[in-house]
Amino acid sequence: MPERDLHFLTELAAQLRVDSVRSSAAAGSGHPTSSLSAADLMAVLFACHLRYDFDRPDDPGNDHLIFSKGHASPLLYALFKAAGAIDDEELLSFRRRGSRLEGHPTPRLPWVDVATGSLGQGLPVGVGMAMAGRLERLPYRVWVLCGDGELAEGSVWEAAEHAGDEGLANLTLIVDVNRLGQRGPTRHGWDTGAYARRFGAFGWRTIEIDGHDPGEIDFAFGDARNTRRRPTVILAKTRKGEGVLEVENREGAHGKALRDPETAVGELGGSRNITLRVHRPESTAVPHRFEDGPLTLPEYDVGTRVATRTAFGEALAALGAARGDVVALDGEVADSTKVEEFAKAFPERFFEMYIAEQQLVAAAVGMQARGWVPYAATFAAFLTRAHDFIRMAAVSRASIRLVGSHAGVAIGEDGPSQMGLEDLAMMRPVYGSVVLYPCDANQTAALTAQTADLPGVTYLRTTRGDTPVIYPPGERFPVGGSRVLRHSPTDRATIVAAGVTVHEALAAADELAEQGVPVGVIDLYSVKPVDVAALTAAATTTGNLITVEDHRPEGGLGDAVLDAVGELGPRVVKLAVRGLPGSATPRQQLADARIDRRAIVEAVRRLL
Amino acid sequence: MPERDLHFLTELAAQLRVDSVRSSAAAGSGHPTSSLSAADLMAVLFACHLRYDFDRPDDPGNDHLIFSKGHASPLLYALFKAAGAIDDEELLSFRRRGSRLEGHPTPRLPWVDVATGSLGQGLPVGVGMAMAGRLERLPYRVWVLCGDGELAEGSVWEAAEHAGDEGLANLTLIVDVNRLGQRGPTRHGWDTGAYARRFGAFGWRTIEIDGHDPGEIDFAFGDARNTRRRPTVILAKTRKGEGVLEVENREGAHGKALRDPETAVGELGGSRNITLRVHRPESTAVPHRFEDGPLTLPEYDVGTRVATRTAFGEALAALGAARGDVVALDGEVADSTKVEEFAKAFPERFFEMYIAEQQLVAAAVGMQARGWVPYAATFAAFLTRAHDFIRMAAVSRASIRLVGSHAGVAIGEDGPSQMGLEDLAMMRPVYGSVVLYPCDANQTAALTAQTADLPGVTYLRTTRGDTPVIYPPGERFPVGGSRVLRHSPTDRATIVAAGVTVHEALAAADELAEQGVPVGVIDLYSVKPVDVAALTAAATTTGNLITVEDHRPEGGLGDAVLDAVGELGPRVVKLAVRGLPGSATPRQQLADARIDRRAIVEAVRRLL
Repeated sequence: MPERDLHFLTELAAQLRVDSVRSSAAAGSGHPTSSLSAADLMAVLFACHLRYDFDRPDDPGNDHLIFSKGHASPLLYALFKAAGAIDDEELLSFRRRGSRLEGHPTPRLPWVDVATGSLGQGLPVGVGMAMAGRLERLPYRVWVLCGDGELAEGSVWEAAEHAGDEGLANLTLIVDVNRLGQRGPTRHGWDTGAYARRFGAFGWRTIEIDGHDPGEIDFAFGDARNTRRRPTVILAKTRKGEGVLEVENREGAHGKALRDPETAVGELGGSRNITLRVHRPESTAVPHRFEDGPLTLPEYDVGTRVATRTAFGEALAALGAARGDVVALDGEVADSTKVEEFAKAFPERFFEMYIAEQQLVAAAVGMQARGWVPYAATFAAFLTRAHDFIRMAAVSRASIRLVGSHAGVAIGEDGPSQMGLEDLAMMRPVYGSVVLYPCDANQTAALTAQTADLPGVTYLRTTRGDTPVIYPPGERFPVGGSRVLRHSPTDRATIVAAGVTVHEALAAADELAEQGVPVGVIDLYSVKPVDVAALTAAATTTGNLITVEDHRPEGGLGDAVLDAVGELGPRVVKLAVRGLPGSATPRQQLADARIDRRAIVEAVRRLL
Repeated sequence: MPERDLHFLTELAAQLRVDSVRSSAAAGSGHPTSSLSAADLMAVLFACHLRYDFDRPDDPGNDHLIFSKGHASPLLYALFKAAGAIDDEELLSFRRRGSRLEGHPTPRLPWVDVATGSLGQGLPVGVGMAMAGRLERLPYRVWVLCGDGELAEGSVWEAAEHAGDEGLANLTLIVDVNRLGQRGPTRHGWDTGAYARRFGAFGWRTIEIDGHDPGEIDFAFGDARNTRRRPTVILAKTRKGEGVLEVENREGAHGKALRDPETAVGELGGSRNITLRVHRPESTAVPHRFEDGPLTLPEYDVGTRVATRTAFGEALAALGAARGDVVALDGEVADSTKVEEFAKAFPERFFEMYIAEQQLVAAAVGMQARGWVPYAATFAAFLTRAHDFIRMAAVSRASIRLVGSHAGVAIGEDGPSQMGLEDLAMMRPVYGSVVLYPCDANQTAALTAQTADLPGVTYLRTTRGDTPVIYPPGERFPVGGSRVLRHSPTDRATIVAAGVTVHEALAAADELAEQGVPVGVIDLYSVKPVDVAALTAAATTTGNLITVEDHRPEGGLGDAVLDAVGELGPRVVKLAVRGLPGSATPRQQLADARIDRRAIVEAVRRLL
C-alpha cells in the first residue's frame, strides 16, 4: 500500500476515533471503547472496498453493511459523518431524545437496513441479504461487523452453517476480536485461531489479521471479495479502546463515555474534518424478479373438512404464482406447515432453513430488506425459538409474515412440547404486529393473500387437524375485523372464539339455543388489531362475554377481548388451556382443557 | 466382543425395534423409524455402559440419559420395558390419554429428568448436568442421544462451545446420523466427517462409527468413558427405519406408525421378552454440597435510592451464604444484572455462560435436575432468546429462577433493542410460572430470598436505575400478594402499578389528592399469581382501575389485572408502552411512553 494511502487511512481512522469519543462524551454514555477497536477496519472498508451511494440508499446495487455489534454505534455514526451523510451537529445529537442517532442503530437512518443491539443477529440477517443477492443475480456484497463476544450466540453458528453450506461468497464477516466483553475477557481472548478453526469447519474461508494494520486489512478485504464459492470471515485481532491510554485494552471500560474525552481527543491528534467519497456501485443494477400473474386462490366447499394449514399452503402457492416477489422459508417441516405446496411450485423461491428457527426468521428479515415478501413457517411452538429475532424485526421496521402451524392442544397425541400454547402471547406484544387466527380454509386463504401487502410483523396461526369449511369462497376478511356467526336480539351472552374453538362455540350455541338460551358467537379471526366495535356491541347488548381459545389464558384471545372492552366493564369469562396437557386425541384434549362445546355450555350456564 | 455378547445385543436391539413398532402401532401414531435407527446404539448403552438403578431413580450416583430426539420415545419406552421398569401393558398405552408414556418423554416418568421434543435442547441441558457433576465431585456420566437434523440448531453449538471449553469429559453426545429429517435429507446426509470437523473445532473428541455394529458401538462408548479433559461425540452412521423393509432408509416415513406392523415384527424376528439388568452405580455416591449458614439479607434505609438490580445482586450473595445449594449463572452481563456480587463471594458456584442465553437457561434446567437451586440472569430483553427453553422447562417441571434486568423504557438512552418490553408477556403464559416485579430494594431482597423455595419457573424483573426505598427492611411480601400504598374510603379510582411505575403512581396520587381527587394505589409486585382479593376489593369499591406498566400493553400487568377482575366488570384503563421508543433519558422515556405521573393524572381525570 502506498505511503500516501496509508497516511490517509490512518488519518481517517483517527477521525473516526475522535468522533466516537466526542459523540459519546456529548451524550454522557455509549460505547466508545468498542468503537475504537474497529475504527481501522471500518476506515479501510469505507475508503477502499464498500460500494455504496449515500445519496441513494435504495440503489439495489449498493453493498450492505450490518453493524451486528450495534453498541459500536458511535463508530457507525462517525463513518456516516465521514461519508458526508450527516453533519457534525447531528453527530453530537447522539442518544438525545428525537435524534436519529440512537444508542443502537435503527432504520430511522436511511443507511441502516436493520436494527442491531441484540448480539448475534447481524450475521443471520446478513445471510438473508446474501441469499437475496443470489436470487437477484446482483454482485453486491454483504459486510457484517461483529464482536468476538457475540460468537458465543448459537444463532451465529446457525448462520455459519447456512452460509457455509450454501457457499455464500458474497458474504463477509469481519470479527473485531478485541478480547474483552462487557464483564471481562471473552472465552478465547486473542486466540483468533480458535475462531478460525470453527468457521473453517463450517466451510468458510478464514483470514486472521492485525486489525490495526491498514495494509493487512486492505489485503484481507480484497481477498474476501475475490473468494469464490465460500463466505469469508476476517478475524481481526484488535485492542479495545485502541489509541486512548485511559481505556486501551483495559477491563471495566465497556459501555461508558470516557472520563477525560479532551485528553483522549488530544492523544488521537485532535479533530479532523475528512470527507470521504465512498465508491458507488459500478452501474445501475436491476435485480432479477420473477413474473407476476393472476391471483387464483384455492376454493373450498362449505361443509367439507380441510385443515387451515393445508389451505395456507395452497394459498401460498397461489400467491407465489400471482406475485414474483413472494418467497417462502421453512424450518424443515414444510410437509407439516404445508409450505411444501409452494416449494414444489416455486423451488427457486423456496428456502429450506433446516431446524434453525433463529436463522429462519433472520433470513426473512434480511430478504425483506431487499424488497422481497417473505413467509416463514414452522410449528407455532418452535417460533418461540426466534422470539428475540421477532422482537428485533419490529425494531427494524421489517415486514415479514410468520406462520405457526400445529397450534394448541388440538394437535392431540404429540403432547405439550409440540403444542403452540404461548404463541399469541408472544406475537401480540410485538410492536406493530398483526395476529390472525383463521377457523376455516377459505378464511385462511383470504388472510394469507392479504398479509402479502401488510407492513410490519404478521403472524398467521394454523391448525393441524381438519376443520369444517363454514365460509363460502371469495368472502372478505379484513384485518381488524371479525364475523358475527350467531346473533339474535335476545342473546344473553356472546361467545368469542377463533380458530378451532369457533367450531366448538357454534356447537355450544346450537345446544344452548335448544335449551332456550340464545347466545351470540363471534369469530375473532383478527386477534390483533381486534374488532373493538363488534366486541363493544356485544359487550353493551349482552353484557356477558365468554372467550374460548386453544392457548394459555395469559396474553391470548381472551386478553385481547378484555383489553378491547376494559373501559366498558362487561363480565368476561375466559376459557383457555390452564393445565399441562399430556397425550390424548384432539377431542379428548379439547375436553380436558375445558375449551370444548361442553365446557362452553357450562361456562355460559354458570355465568347467567 | 465375544459371540455370545454380540448375539445378546443383537437380540436386545431386535426387541427394542419390535417394541417400538408395536407401541406405535397400538397408538396409531408416533415415530418408529426414528426409533429403529438408534436401537443398536441404545441396546449397547443399556447393556454395557449405562450405570443406572431403575429402582432408585434419585440415586445421586446414577448416570443421566437425555433423549434429545424426544420423538424417538418408542425406543426409550422399549428400553424402560427391557430394563424392567415398565411392563408390556404400559408399553402399549403409548400416547393414550392418561398414560405416562407421552408422545414425547416428560418427567411424569421417574427415569426421565427433563422433557424433550423441541430439538436441540438435550445437549445444552446435558451440559448443565455435567457441570453439576463436576461441582458435586461425582463420577456419573451424562449421555445425550440426538438426531443429525437437530445439529442445525444454534443451541447445540452454544453447548458444544461451553462443553468443549470447560472440558466436560463426563458428557457424551451420541448422534444418530440417519441422514433423513422430517421433510427430507439433512444438510450433510451421512457425511459424519462434516459433523466431526465441527465438533473437533469446538474442542471435542470425535468418534465416527457404524451405528448398527454393536462391536464398534461398544468400543466407542468405552473410549468416551476413558477420554479425559474433553467431551466426546460419537457420530453413528445409521439407517432410519433399520430392519423394516417398508420404511428402511426411505423418505416420507417420518412420524407415522407403520402401515403393516405385523410384517415388520415378523421381519424383525418376532417378539422377545428379554429383561436386562442395567449396571447400577458402583457405590452410594454422596454429592459434594456447600455449607449453609444464617440468612442475613441486605437492608436499605427508607428514603434512600437503590436500584432493584443492585438489591437483587446483594440479596443473591446473602442467599448464597445461607444456602449451599444456590448456584448462579449469567450471560456475560453480571456487572449489569449484579450477579457479580454472588460471583465475587462464591466463585465456585458462579457460572459464566457468556452471551448464549439458550445455554444459560438450559444449564439452569440441567443443574436443578441434580437438586441445585439455580438463578440465571441477563437483560430482560435477551431472555426472549431462551423462550423455547423456558417453555420446555415448564414441561420438564423444572424449578429455575430467571432474573431479567434492564426492564422497560426506564433504561433510557440505550434504546429499544435493550429494553425488556415483552418479558412479562413471555413469562406469564409459562405453565405454573411465578412472575415478580418489585419496586424497591427491600422488597427485591425479600422476594429474591423467597424464590429459592418456589417450585417451577420463577421470574424476577429488575430495574436499571435507582428507585426510592419505600418499604422498611424485614417486611414480608408473599407471592400472590400486593401492597395497598394509598387508600381512603373516598377513593374515586385505584392505580395499580409495579416496579418503576409504583413511584409514578404515588406521585400522581399525591398530585390528585392535592387537587381534591383521592385515589388508591396498589403495588402489584406479584404479577402472577395475582392478588385477586385486593384487586376485587378495589374494583368493587372504586369501580375504576388504572393500570400502569413499563411494558407493552399486551400480556403484562394490565392484562393480569383485567383477567383478575374480568368477571366483575369494573372499568379498567391501561397505561403501557404503545409506541416504538428511541433514545432519551429515563424520565423522558416514561413521559413519552405516557406512563409517568403526569400521564397517570390525566388518565384518572379522563376516566372520572
